Amino acid sequence: MDSAHLGISAKPMTWVVHLLGLAVSVLVLVWCIYFRGGLAFEATNKSLIFNIHPVLMLIGYIFVASEAILVYKVLPIPKFYQKVVHLSLHLIALVLGAVGIYAAFKYHNESGIVNLYSWHSWLGLGTICLFAIQWLVGFFSFFFPGAPDSVRGSLLPWHVLFGLLVYLFAIAAAELGFLEKLTFLESSGLYKYGSEAMLVNFTALAVLIFAVFVILSAILPAEEEPEGYTTIETAAP
Amino acid sequence: MDSAHLGISAKPMTWVVHLLGLAVSVLVLVWCIYFRGGLAFEATNKSLIFNIHPVLMLIGYIFVASEAILVYKVLPIPKFYQKVVHLSLHLIALVLGAVGIYAAFKYHNESGIVNLYSWHSWLGLGTICLFAIQWLVGFFSFFFPGAPDSVRGSLLPWHVLFGLLVYLFAIAAAELGFLEKLTFLESSGLYKYGSEAMLVNFTALAVLIFAVFVILSAILPAEEEPEGYTTIETAAP
Repeated sequence: MDSAHLGISAKPMTWVVHLLGLAVSVLVLVWCIYFRGGLAFEATNKSLIFNIHPVLMLIGYIFVASEAILVYKVLPIPKFYQKVVHLSLHLIALVLGAVGIYAAFKYHNESGIVNLYSWHSWLGLGTICLFAIQWLVGFFSFFFPGAPDSVRGSLLPWHVLFGLLVYLFAIAAAELGFLEKLTFLESSGLYKYGSEAMLVNFTALAVLIFAVFVILSAILPAEEEPEGYTTIETAAP
Repeated sequence: MDSAHLGISAKPMTWVVHLLGLAVSVLVLVWCIYFRGGLAFEATNKSLIFNIHPVLMLIGYIFVASEAILVYKVLPIPKFYQKVVHLSLHLIALVLGAVGIYAAFKYHNESGIVNLYSWHSWLGLGTICLFAIQWLVGFFSFFFPGAPDSVRGSLLPWHVLFGLLVYLFAIAAAELGFLEKLTFLESSGLYKYGSEAMLVNFTALAVLIFAVFVILSAILPAEEEPEGYTTIETAAP
């Protein structure tokens, strides 16, 4: 499959990503602050510790990683600096994601809830490990010290494919997280058709559409390729 | 992104799909029959009506649709017959999926449970509607009466892309379904680290890996392309 045959470029898709990314960030903040009472790392109301988890996973991890994926399509700077931004944003996403996962464990431990029994937790933890491996392999192969040119050339399509798969796993984990938390809340009496339930469902839907546009932006060729700039497609790192 | 640059062919991936497809089919049957008491369309124990839902959605809908996607990579028959099998398997998947969704509504209605409040139900119902639209557009464009050749050529990459997106949505809906049902059972006292919980988590994991190999099989070029046969890549329907 060659995405160039689709006959459209990544540029218009990247604008949808920026806008939908802002939209889902606002939605998750409205949920965790307005409906769930706010965020805190230390609190007697342990729910406030939990609330850090969805905020950091969606804004800190998924949104930042999404922008990192798109760097080669949106930033008109030389390839070396594109790589620096790509690596840096992914590292920020990794760290914020790890802190977000720590918040979930902290909430569980301080509330007497057991850890790591749900498919959401398995997939989420597995995905951030794959994400870290992908980052390390990318760093050593394409940045420093860098693999020989012939190896880079054959490694790059796998870097893109594996990266997009890990991205899809992260989106799947986020979708599972929205459903799991809402199901808990509904078991405790939250009205199934109330404002909060609808908000969370629509946030999950918006995240899914957001991810579709990130994938499209990543696989489509960049609109214009002025000399000295590069895209994932044409890069021979 | 051109998947031909990955340097491998679809054929070995398709064998993994067949085998993992059989494995997840056995797993969901073990869950619904051995752990959940079996399947029935009419029963005083309404849970038996529900059990039809995961079985039909995973085996009847997702597994059959997966094989339909791979027809162009695995069946060494002329293009016309490949299309007939592709369309027929997808139609079977659509019908079995619709019956599976009916079973979920029937269970809800006969048990006094409300419908369509969860993100799983929204995504699942939305996806089967998109699946039906995709089938109809495919039928009329590529089979009968068929669009003009120039239109087919530019429509095909979109047919593949939209089809794979709908497929990913169906996988996401299945993953949400496993988590939602297990969360309900655990709220009602099922041991969170017991055999059944582990079985369902591992089934969800196996379905995810299965889907990765379906996507790989779909986007990778076929191993060999003897004259008269075709692949999604080379087809100019």
